[in-house]
Amino acid sequence: MNTKPFKALFSDQPWNPRLTYSPAVQVGNLIFLSGTTAGDAEGNLIGAGDIVAQARFIFEKFEAVLKLAGGGLSNIIETTDYVLTLDDYNKTAALRRELFGGPPWPASTGVVVSGLIRPGALIEIKAIAALGD
Amino acid sequence: MNTKPFKALFSDQPWNPRLTYSPAVQVGNLIFLSGTTAGDAEGNLIGAGDIVAQARFIFEKFEAVLKLAGGGLSNIIETTDYVLTLDDYNKTAALRRELFGGPPWPASTGVVVSGLIRPGALIEIKAIAALGD
Amino acid sequence: MNTKPFKALFSDQPWNPRLTYSPAVQVGNLIFLSGTTAGDAEGNLIGAGDIVAQARFIFEKFEAVLKLAGGGLSNIIETTDYVLTLDDYNKTAALRRELFGGPPWPASTGVVVSGLIRPGALIEIKAIAALGD
Repeated sequence: MNTKPFKALFSDQPWNPRLTYSPAVQVGNLIFLSGTTAGDAEGNLIGAGDIVAQARFIFEKFEAVLKLAGGGLSNIIETTDYVLTLDDYNKTAALRRELFGGPPWPASTGVVVSGLIRPGALIEIKAIAALGD
Repeated sequence: MNTKPFKALFSDQPWNPRLTYSPAVQVGNLIFLSGTTAGDAEGNLIGAGDIVAQARFIFEKFEAVLKLAGGGLSNIIETTDYVLTLDDYNKTAALRRELFGGPPWPASTGVVVSGLIRPGALIEIKAIAALGD
Repeated sequence: MNTKPFKALFSDQPWNPRLTYSPAVQVGNLIFLSGTTAGDAEGNLIGAGDIVAQARFIFEKFEAVLKLAGGGLSNIIETTDYVLTLDDYNKTAALRRELFGGPPWPASTGVVVSGLIRPGALIEIKAIAALGD
């Protein structure tokens, strides 16, 4: 029995039982999405060397998870983007414009870090989403 | 029509239409402030080489945004501070004491990263605020 | 008089009055835990060179704080883990399994940063918890 005060959200991809985190959790109308890199269900990196392809795949994974709660990318209220170079980060703005479809834009934070959680990853994104009333 | 479940908050400074994020978003009584560096409305860095001046300017920007929601710095419940050196970070404690005005203090996280989103920035702060009932 | 819209949570360890942040704050049913390293009440590092011992001590501090709000580690909905090497980070999975006790797992984000807030720290964790209805 789940006595924890939140619900885990999993997209329909198989989830590795060795992992000790959920792709996302929902508490009330807020959804917290785990820091995510462009790994597919088999653990292979998608978009090697291409930060935009990686970011796109990450948002596809977010969309699949948010869909389970009746939402989508337009429910994202905040993203934190961890990247390895500032130059790379600047390349992702057009993708955000495409995926979020115009204002109101989510809040956003970007920082350059020393390493990401998956070898070959150029970007790792965590996000918070909110469901409407 | 905004069908997204949140509201964007902008201070009265002109906002660059090329940007794909909001300075802050409000959902319910929570306000999520974007990771912010000490850039003014024209994109110029304020407080070059001076982390305390930069942090002060960032909090002035936060205050302007929070004011739009009827709040101020005392509504900040959490900050995440990204800095380039730990020595720099220690210099900002007195500013926090001045601006937050004593307990209860917000929660706070500080980490040293490899780079910030604006050249010349010594600190980047993201924050969450809560409006009272 | 506290006119701020949140409550600070302190465990029963003495809190250094020079600090300008709270270990955790509660607003509504959400609790925001500050980025925490393995320092004891006297400021000494626990678990030098041992990331698992450090992470365990951090979660003990989280548990003490969450207990004040009637909760515990099972209330944690999200963690952000800042580490210095990816190899170190992988060592903490078994601890998470032990402490969170199985699904639903919290959301989780891990990134490799250049430095943490306490000399000798190998991991710094921030977290969000939610109290049940």
